Amino acid sequence: MSSDVISVDTRSVDISNLRINGDRLWQSLMDLAKIGATAKGGVCRLTLTDLDRQGRDLVIGWGKAEGLSVEVDQIGNVFMRRAGKNNALLPIVAGSHIDTQPTGGKFDGNFGVLAALEVIRTLNEQGIETDAPVEMVFWTNEEGSRFVPVMMGSGVFAGIFPLEVAYAATDTEGKTVKDELLKIGYAGEAIPGDHQIGAYFEAHIEQGPILEDKETEIGVVQAVLGIRWYDCIVTGMESHAGPTPMAMRQDALQVATRIMQEVVNIAGQFAPHGRGTVGMVQVHPNSRNVVPGSVKFSIDFRNMTDGEVDEMDAALKAFLLKIEQETGLGVELKLVSQYPAAPFHPSCKDAVRNAAQKLGYSSMDIVSGAGHDAVYMSMLAPTGMIFIPCKDGISHNEIEYSSPEQVTAGANVLLHAMLEKAGVISGK
Amino acid sequence: MSSDVISVDTRSVDISNLRINGDRLWQSLMDLAKIGATAKGGVCRLTLTDLDRQGRDLVIGWGKAEGLSVEVDQIGNVFMRRAGKNNALLPIVAGSHIDTQPTGGKFDGNFGVLAALEVIRTLNEQGIETDAPVEMVFWTNEEGSRFVPVMMGSGVFAGIFPLEVAYAATDTEGKTVKDELLKIGYAGEAIPGDHQIGAYFEAHIEQGPILEDKETEIGVVQAVLGIRWYDCIVTGMESHAGPTPMAMRQDALQVATRIMQEVVNIAGQFAPHGRGTVGMVQVHPNSRNVVPGSVKFSIDFRNMTDGEVDEMDAALKAFLLKIEQETGLGVELKLVSQYPAAPFHPSCKDAVRNAAQKLGYSSMDIVSGAGHDAVYMSMLAPTGMIFIPCKDGISHNEIEYSSPEQVTAGANVLLHAMLEKAGVISGK
Repeated sequence: MSSDVISVDTRSVDISNLRINGDRLWQSLMDLAKIGATAKGGVCRLTLTDLDRQGRDLVIGWGKAEGLSVEVDQIGNVFMRRAGKNNALLPIVAGSHIDTQPTGGKFDGNFGVLAALEVIRTLNEQGIETDAPVEMVFWTNEEGSRFVPVMMGSGVFAGIFPLEVAYAATDTEGKTVKDELLKIGYAGEAIPGDHQIGAYFEAHIEQGPILEDKETEIGVVQAVLGIRWYDCIVTGMESHAGPTPMAMRQDALQVATRIMQEVVNIAGQFAPHGRGTVGMVQVHPNSRNVVPGSVKFSIDFRNMTDGEVDEMDAALKAFLLKIEQETGLGVELKLVSQYPAAPFHPSCKDAVRNAAQKLGYSSMDIVSGAGHDAVYMSMLAPTGMIFIPCKDGISHNEIEYSSPEQVTAGANVLLHAMLEKAGVISGK
Repeated sequence: MSSDVISVDTRSVDISNLRINGDRLWQSLMDLAKIGATAKGGVCRLTLTDLDRQGRDLVIGWGKAEGLSVEVDQIGNVFMRRAGKNNALLPIVAGSHIDTQPTGGKFDGNFGVLAALEVIRTLNEQGIETDAPVEMVFWTNEEGSRFVPVMMGSGVFAGIFPLEVAYAATDTEGKTVKDELLKIGYAGEAIPGDHQIGAYFEAHIEQGPILEDKETEIGVVQAVLGIRWYDCIVTGMESHAGPTPMAMRQDALQVATRIMQEVVNIAGQFAPHGRGTVGMVQVHPNSRNVVPGSVKFSIDFRNMTDGEVDEMDAALKAFLLKIEQETGLGVELKLVSQYPAAPFHPSCKDAVRNAAQKLGYSSMDIVSGAGHDAVYMSMLAPTGMIFIPCKDGISHNEIEYSSPEQVTAGANVLLHAMLEKAGVISGK
């Protein structure tokens, strides 16, 4: 053996039998879920409320008990660090968020944060020394249900929007992010984005039905889909349903329903990852015996690459032009907002896939239709996500559920993916 | 000459030059419209309010000035009678209603009542004696916007629903028809329906675009369309618009929009009088990024005969069965209410058509898509309706408008149609 690897205990560097403690992880999930627990078994812990403070305090207490150093930045993102052998290396970071929807569940976000904590607990318990430092993080206001924009903490961190914009955001009572951060004591001093990251992993419940349907334990997330949101307004002429013959109508709803069907047709043309949804419809005047004069409805397009979303956009616009010419009714399309597609890094996808294979879990490639903090992290560092199944694909709901076995599998994959990136120096 | 026609002045029985006074009619329309006048030029004179009382008092005052006898029945319908030569004959009656929608116009209903008054004023002025008595009437609560059911006064009169049911109807403040009738002093003593009718005419604005489009002065109304109202509820499964692939969705809106288009297709199959309208849509949960879990929407079918409406009903039900089998989503259809088709009496249609021809007005056969008091009268006596154009087909709106020439034409046709049925004995 050469002198520079003298400290390596080669026996214990075999980590193939290393596993997280599923019972401990489950207990932490249940303990954190008590803060803001709802009668129906869910959690209401809105960002920057006193309940959020209690949740943050609990998780930080757990981190401190593991000897982690704590850093809070100006937007309230919390990093907790376990030193590696070579602290000049950038840290391997894992996390998510602990704020919830008003009628949220126990797993969305919280699972990713506590899985990262469980990885660190396991490393400590087993005396594993990593080459690079290992960190856990929770980001402020991922949900966006109290303050917009969503994914606020990671967005400020990645420089997507300025700190001042986030600070000025108000809730329905007019309270600002800045005041509420100060009030709960989580306006830190670190400049968001200064904290450098070597790689980022986020474990998360799928929030969709695919893994459960395919009876697969681990989803190797390839990308978060690009999203484009529109409002479409069709303008015809309101008239009485009785006296107006069919041929003399300018029925806005009849034209709108053709467009609503085309939204789904276009998604089908851009399979397998194209999504097209009309979720919101407002009919005017919305009276039983009046031919609708105008209809406003939302369109949500998603796909794996921005180029594919552009093609869906072009197909929609061509159809709208055609239907406007055919019917003579006014058809207006407004872009409401858009989120770029976030493809994940090959090395991180490989690390997740390898970990699942090594551990004997069934796995499959999957995409994320919903946004996550990992979208913004992927702009800063190699990033990957691990999905686990959730019951009936249900999320943002008090009945959201993943089993102890499912969360254990996800945390084990996170452990081994992080270790592949961090490098194991020694163990017990 | 035989002695029994000794009183006939044959010179004056030539009524071919007899015309109503259009200026006087227009002035009465404008005077009545001052009661409840709105800033935008419409009228808000809801049934059984103090404004309704003022309108009733004004019209009855005009009738008394013409020497008419007044009868008010228990539901507040008001008949005013001009005796004929032979008062054993049943009266030839014309009228409509003077209550309005909350944002109603000056013409809907009011025109029919004041055209009947103008007929009587003309007969008086010209000293015309009719064989049968001639009456004008206004019916209580035709609009149904304060109390349901609509066409309440004529409905009680025709025995469609009992007086007690109408009395017990409440407005949004919980006030009853009976109390409000008593309060404005129009709970009369006559038993509704006891008042016998020889024939009934109702002049009305078309409330549709056809006469204006065809540049025709008089519509000879053939029938009021039968109406069937439904609610249709499609039940799928609510899911997140991002993570749910197209093939795994149970999108209630996509199924609902196919039905909405079929409603219009079916109406087209039952041309020329078939009407199919979806006016009201509720999407649940109506959120931009959630695939709709359920959609409730109204269906309004109309046609000239009840048999044709039955066929439209059968076509709809067959389609719903097919789409339910195809998609696996739940499709429920509830009948909300129905109104039978009311074909008008050949002798009354002829009287209207003859009058228009004799007077040199352009005329066409037309149907009424909307309900009128004449529907219920047609169950009791030979009945006919006269339509005049209204600007852009707009009604139930403060900008509702027919020109002085148009209302004059309609009242002249009413005059001659009534005289054909009543018989002219003598004139000046």
